[in-house]
Amino acid sequence: MSILFPGTSHPGLAELISKKYKLKLGRCEIKKFACQEIYVKLNEDVRGLRCFILQTATQRVNDELMEVCLLSDALRRQKPKEIVLIMPHFGYARQDRLAEAGEPISAKVAADLLVCAGISHIITFDLHSDQIEGFFDVPVDNIKCYGLFADYFNKKQLQDPVVVAPDSGAAKIAQRLANLLNCQIAILHKTRPGHHQVEHTHLIGDVKGKAAILFDDMIDTAGTVCTAAEELLNQGATQVFIAATHGIFSGPAPERLASVKCEEIIVTDTLPINKSQFSNLKILSIAELLENIL
Amino acid sequence: MSILFPGTSHPGLAELISKKYKLKLGRCEIKKFACQEIYVKLNEDVRGLRCFILQTATQRVNDELMEVCLLSDALRRQKPKEIVLIMPHFGYARQDRLAEAGEPISAKVAADLLVCAGISHIITFDLHSDQIEGFFDVPVDNIKCYGLFADYFNKKQLQDPVVVAPDSGAAKIAQRLANLLNCQIAILHKTRPGHHQVEHTHLIGDVKGKAAILFDDMIDTAGTVCTAAEELLNQGATQVFIAATHGIFSGPAPERLASVKCEEIIVTDTLPINKSQFSNLKILSIAELLENIL
Amino acid sequence: MSILFPGTSHPGLAELISKKYKLKLGRCEIKKFACQEIYVKLNEDVRGLRCFILQTATQRVNDELMEVCLLSDALRRQKPKEIVLIMPHFGYARQDRLAEAGEPISAKVAADLLVCAGISHIITFDLHSDQIEGFFDVPVDNIKCYGLFADYFNKKQLQDPVVVAPDSGAAKIAQRLANLLNCQIAILHKTRPGHHQVEHTHLIGDVKGKAAILFDDMIDTAGTVCTAAEELLNQGATQVFIAATHGIFSGPAPERLASVKCEEIIVTDTLPINKSQFSNLKILSIAELLENIL
Amino acid sequence: MSILFPGTSHPGLAELISKKYKLKLGRCEIKKFACQEIYVKLNEDVRGLRCFILQTATQRVNDELMEVCLLSDALRRQKPKEIVLIMPHFGYARQDRLAEAGEPISAKVAADLLVCAGISHIITFDLHSDQIEGFFDVPVDNIKCYGLFADYFNKKQLQDPVVVAPDSGAAKIAQRLANLLNCQIAILHKTRPGHHQVEHTHLIGDVKGKAAILFDDMIDTAGTVCTAAEELLNQGATQVFIAATHGIFSGPAPERLASVKCEEIIVTDTLPINKSQFSNLKILSIAELLENIL
Amino acid sequence: MSILFPGTSHPGLAELISKKYKLKLGRCEIKKFACQEIYVKLNEDVRGLRCFILQTATQRVNDELMEVCLLSDALRRQKPKEIVLIMPHFGYARQDRLAEAGEPISAKVAADLLVCAGISHIITFDLHSDQIEGFFDVPVDNIKCYGLFADYFNKKQLQDPVVVAPDSGAAKIAQRLANLLNCQIAILHKTRPGHHQVEHTHLIGDVKGKAAILFDDMIDTAGTVCTAAEELLNQGATQVFIAATHGIFSGPAPERLASVKCEEIIVTDTLPINKSQFSNLKILSIAELLENIL
Amino acid sequence: MSILFPGTSHPGLAELISKKYKLKLGRCEIKKFACQEIYVKLNEDVRGLRCFILQTATQRVNDELMEVCLLSDALRRQKPKEIVLIMPHFGYARQDRLAEAGEPISAKVAADLLVCAGISHIITFDLHSDQIEGFFDVPVDNIKCYGLFADYFNKKQLQDPVVVAPDSGAAKIAQRLANLLNCQIAILHKTRPGHHQVEHTHLIGDVKGKAAILFDDMIDTAGTVCTAAEELLNQGATQVFIAATHGIFSGPAPERLASVKCEEIIVTDTLPINKSQFSNLKILSIAELLENIL
Repeated sequence: MSILFPGTSHPGLAELISKKYKLKLGRCEIKKFACQEIYVKLNEDVRGLRCFILQTATQRVNDELMEVCLLSDALRRQKPKEIVLIMPHFGYARQDRLAEAGEPISAKVAADLLVCAGISHIITFDLHSDQIEGFFDVPVDNIKCYGLFADYFNKKQLQDPVVVAPDSGAAKIAQRLANLLNCQIAILHKTRPGHHQVEHTHLIGDVKGKAAILFDDMIDTAGTVCTAAEELLNQGATQVFIAATHGIFSGPAPERLASVKCEEIIVTDTLPINKSQFSNLKILSIAELLENIL
Repeated sequence: MSILFPGTSHPGLAELISKKYKLKLGRCEIKKFACQEIYVKLNEDVRGLRCFILQTATQRVNDELMEVCLLSDALRRQKPKEIVLIMPHFGYARQDRLAEAGEPISAKVAADLLVCAGISHIITFDLHSDQIEGFFDVPVDNIKCYGLFADYFNKKQLQDPVVVAPDSGAAKIAQRLANLLNCQIAILHKTRPGHHQVEHTHLIGDVKGKAAILFDDMIDTAGTVCTAAEELLNQGATQVFIAATHGIFSGPAPERLASVKCEEIIVTDTLPINKSQFSNLKILSIAELLENIL
Repeated sequence: MSILFPGTSHPGLAELISKKYKLKLGRCEIKKFACQEIYVKLNEDVRGLRCFILQTATQRVNDELMEVCLLSDALRRQKPKEIVLIMPHFGYARQDRLAEAGEPISAKVAADLLVCAGISHIITFDLHSDQIEGFFDVPVDNIKCYGLFADYFNKKQLQDPVVVAPDSGAAKIAQRLANLLNCQIAILHKTRPGHHQVEHTHLIGDVKGKAAILFDDMIDTAGTVCTAAEELLNQGATQVFIAATHGIFSGPAPERLASVKCEEIIVTDTLPINKSQFSNLKILSIAELLENIL
Repeated sequence: MSILFPGTSHPGLAELISKKYKLKLGRCEIKKFACQEIYVKLNEDVRGLRCFILQTATQRVNDELMEVCLLSDALRRQKPKEIVLIMPHFGYARQDRLAEAGEPISAKVAADLLVCAGISHIITFDLHSDQIEGFFDVPVDNIKCYGLFADYFNKKQLQDPVVVAPDSGAAKIAQRLANLLNCQIAILHKTRPGHHQVEHTHLIGDVKGKAAILFDDMIDTAGTVCTAAEELLNQGATQVFIAATHGIFSGPAPERLASVKCEEIIVTDTLPINKSQFSNLKILSIAELLENIL
Repeated sequence: MSILFPGTSHPGLAELISKKYKLKLGRCEIKKFACQEIYVKLNEDVRGLRCFILQTATQRVNDELMEVCLLSDALRRQKPKEIVLIMPHFGYARQDRLAEAGEPISAKVAADLLVCAGISHIITFDLHSDQIEGFFDVPVDNIKCYGLFADYFNKKQLQDPVVVAPDSGAAKIAQRLANLLNCQIAILHKTRPGHHQVEHTHLIGDVKGKAAILFDDMIDTAGTVCTAAEELLNQGATQVFIAATHGIFSGPAPERLASVKCEEIIVTDTLPINKSQFSNLKILSIAELLENIL
Repeated sequence: MSILFPGTSHPGLAELISKKYKLKLGRCEIKKFACQEIYVKLNEDVRGLRCFILQTATQRVNDELMEVCLLSDALRRQKPKEIVLIMPHFGYARQDRLAEAGEPISAKVAADLLVCAGISHIITFDLHSDQIEGFFDVPVDNIKCYGLFADYFNKKQLQDPVVVAPDSGAAKIAQRLANLLNCQIAILHKTRPGHHQVEHTHLIGDVKGKAAILFDDMIDTAGTVCTAAEELLNQGATQVFIAATHGIFSGPAPERLASVKCEEIIVTDTLPINKSQFSNLKILSIAELLENIL
């Protein structure tokens, strides 16, 4: 017997998954007191049940992590069979290493907090780096969304496509998508010719006359991807698609994406998205990828 | 060698303590990215140092807890001697037990998260319940502020004072202050005479002709305390003081307190307070209570 | 499949629960060697079973805690489904905070020892403070006995009852019982008018002409409660009942209670009680409160 | 800076060690309430100190273990440098394995409890089995007393000594002492010739005309050792010495030892001993063996 | 539902157990890369299954321990019901205590590594010392093989048998076998008459005219046991059997055993054995002893 | 006070570091018994010392990990100040994620084993992925060697250099070196044009007329890098350098590298290298990078 408790971050996805997989939605009260402390109360008897929490990381990420911890604690005090967190977009995933001395490994901190609060299994999508799985001793399902994008682009029957990594760090995942599309990749990367000189973006590989698919794991402020799109058109790409698993779209992202020349922006529903901000946005659903997991 | 890293919650208190105890203020960058994830970076070499973090719980409590966890992780990766958290107002302290089935013990969750992130000693003030000390295996200094209030009121030389607990849960701490003031206590408590009938507030003890000091550990929305103040005047108290360690003042609190008849509102500086919202507010400083602790 | 192993502290209650809930009593040998080390041996195969241990804290509390730890270790080495401790009176519960510097938090120590020895769930009754639940990461059922007392007193149809807390610390639970009895509370508290002066007991609230129910969580040496009973009669109470969940009755308690003027002493069977020591003792059984828990 | 807190089990040894090694004796209150719960309170500031607890396991072993746990918890809440337990006779050491299915490993339980309560280093003497060291992850000094006994017997210049193990399990330690005395060993062991037949004690090796030293790690009820002494005299031993590290002397031991024919009984002061019960008892002090350890 | 994953150490035993107990053999890839790192990949879906790993400690003991850790980690990331390690010969078991200062307790290290990697239950045979069970908090089945040997020798109907311990440390287990054979034991032990003198082997007990069964838990380089066999013949034993649970047979063992005069060498199949190296080797199977365990 | 214990993997480097930083080399015995179990014994008193273990991962990686665990256990039982492992090449680092379902995260297993055995700080070089730092809660110094290579190549004053990543996964580190050399990068990547077709290696970026520096974190069997070198010459590179931090050189590597056309092979001394196998090998020393760490 399974039951799904939705956090406050993405009720639409919870409902979708609940319906698709006939998972009962658990009744629980989640609110904030005037002092802004979160209050959680389960209105279900979960003894012996397999409990899922659905919570993604949006721009209220710290509240959302605390919510999960409180939900998990409330659950474990009732002896469920297990507590599985479905966190489609895993917060703090980009802070997965010491880029500079003096930093924390914030993704590890987030991982530790969740396990410390009783989470015994994590289901997530396209982690910023696969190695984050190793931050956990509990099982992690890190589901890949390449297939969703490949299916979508294959149906489009693009003329001579090329997958473009917006920076060298994304080269690996660009290649994975390219393999499924049977096409080449290109890579944009930035160099600084000398001290005090302006950073230049260079293109490695060939996009001329091709349909360029800019591909990354997430779109945050959209700065890099918008510059990249322009560069690709300058270099002779016939059209540009912008694709990413996680549509964070923070700060200036909607504005930037509104003014960039691109055929389409394609993301998944790992985060809730205000579609009214975008004119050419396509959202693919990750719900079907949970088929053999739940 | 010691160093104090201030979180973003209460820089004024950090500076005060730093000066008073000649503790070096540690340089560190704390900011939020556009996606609202917190970023932390220490700009100090803390190897071998005794590190303090000063962070209190205000209305940004979840951000503040995460900040502490990230700071602590950044610190422990550099091998300091120890990591001591000074959290004058401990967040989630009121959620320290299952008031109803299905709740978490949120104060325990907060305690676990802090220890999980590397905190090895906690210094706090007037915990909502002393038992929260036992939520930790690491040392906890739960400093009592009764003395501050007793000193303050003794100097006033009130005519026939009485300490009043605004509800029966506060009876114990009211008595502690009364012991220091050598006076009696009274207790307000609520009953419901029958089903479907209105709740009544009753006074146990005597306030007639006395200077009533309403005393609790915190003032949050100020609802209870304002009703209580009125009741005391109705019962013949000559004047009413409202005193509490933690001035949370959330939601309607400033407005309510502005309209209640009371001589003075006295709190400590465990939280930062916008004094412009109050006309008769007195703030006592907890800084001196750290004398033999740091 | 469930099985109940009785420790040596309260065999009568174990038998009662076993019969009422059709729980098999597990055969096990528990004895002391000449050197006073405890020896435990299970004579059941408990693999895969839900195992209960019933042990309460009497005046052999340290032996009883060790017995539980040894039983739990013997059980866990045989891979049961889970190990649930029913400890009706939780030992060391009053030492739940640092009343003075230099003390341990003994209730936390007891909690840690039990979990360290393999206990994965605790069932207990009227913990001295609810916050002790948070000393555990494993589930705790802290069952409230107010209902038992309310039912008992409601049947008596007392004329104008009042629930009296024998000190300010008990005000909260007195009020909970009063709510169920639809009556007022009163509070006794002690003050010392000045240095070197005798402590006085004061009554807050009104008991004149009323039937006073002195209510606390436990009766230990019975000193406070006997003084309180006398004071209430002095203040005009028509009759006095003494009620408490845990009848510890240590040291001079039987003698004191024999000489105090009270209608009846009412406790539960969380501890085994030598009824022959008391003339007007009523024992309510907690067994029925386990209905939805086992 | 070091300080020694004596538990209640062996104050004489604590004083001896304190004087010999100029270790300050820490003031602390240890008492039992009427309800028999132990109460502990340190009257020293131990911050930063190296703290020793001296407690041995006598016939109040469960109280003594709890005392140590409470002392250790009180200490760790004050941030000492470390907490070292000197437990000359380690309780429950004989229950170090599953002799039969259904038993706990009680020595492991005792070890876990101590570490769980904060002990970070153990100093003990002649553990019943050396493997118990491996029950701990914290450092264990398991000091051997063979040298004390060898020195003592060497000074006696016995004619043709032989070390006798009272059962085959003690063969190994008998040999270690024999090595230091440059002599042979003999072993007593029990067999049962057939079902329903009486157990016989057999002697392996030769004691005729020799001075037999019966040697074991402890004397508990003294049954085995007294039977053994008689057997050795029957087999022609000229005299019998009974030697063991730990003089537990429980139950019938004093009476039995009073009536056995033996030259002398030699034990150490790992336990406090009531010398008035014995006529020919020699006590060697372990205090000197702590020389390079403290 | 159960499944058995064989490590690379003893495939024959895995197959035997699989057939005997109808346990499915799990498909998994175990190989070494050119760099000699082990690579493991499960080709089964083990979610919810009771998983066994069969791995014994041979002369590739470190590789074998690492293999188990990797298998266990691969399993736990798929949420099996439990992970049970069957390790017939437990590696590093002889290093179970500090024989000298400065040593590790290697058996404890091995135990910790296995548990740290997710093993939740251990099944092993004739541990070098029973106390090693206490190195684990998880259940350990330490199955005794005495019965196998007793059955085997009883069938032989030896004339006047005697069980001989090759050193005093083995006296205890020799006696256990002797009890089952209803016969006496003898013990060989070594002494050094004085400094700079040669070590002598002495016999305690009587073997003259008897069939001597040299019995130990393992045969490693066979040095001790071969010297012992000769000594027994010198002392008049009519025949000598060499018996041990674990046939490690390392280094010069095959050569030594080929040249010693003994009737038969009897071991079990806890390790894989190259029978072609021995002319009079009898192997008893431990498989049947798993009857009530799996 | 510090002391350095060298494992058996890289004594030369231990000596170098010992001399350079005036670190005393700790005496300890490390050997293998005939049964191939490792035996370790410290011949130093390390109480209170800062202890370093130097061990790298060569082709005896499992033995080397076990050696570290045993050394660490031996150390911690003597209460050193801390135990720091210098593991220049961290074993199992490439198995840092689930490349396929059913795999372990072997690098995480290795990390857990080390910490479980008592290691409290890790110093390593150019981890295969930086995220492995997050597999530890203890501090990790992951020292970057880019600077060593940049210094070396800058001194060469190559005409028009380009840094080439041998696959897309190495693009990121290629760029880091390129930044220090102020030059461009190129990337080789493999695609399979269709099912059942041969894999092709493609070059992204431009190497014509340039001095190509093939750069990766390690050279293992050298297959990829040798194919890559040929491809670069085919594409018009004027010369090819092969550079990598870790020279594993397993299996066919020496042979392959002997036959490839390249100017020079440059690695560091994180592993011991048999220089006689190579004609054009340059080894840079990492010793100097420990300057501010030890």
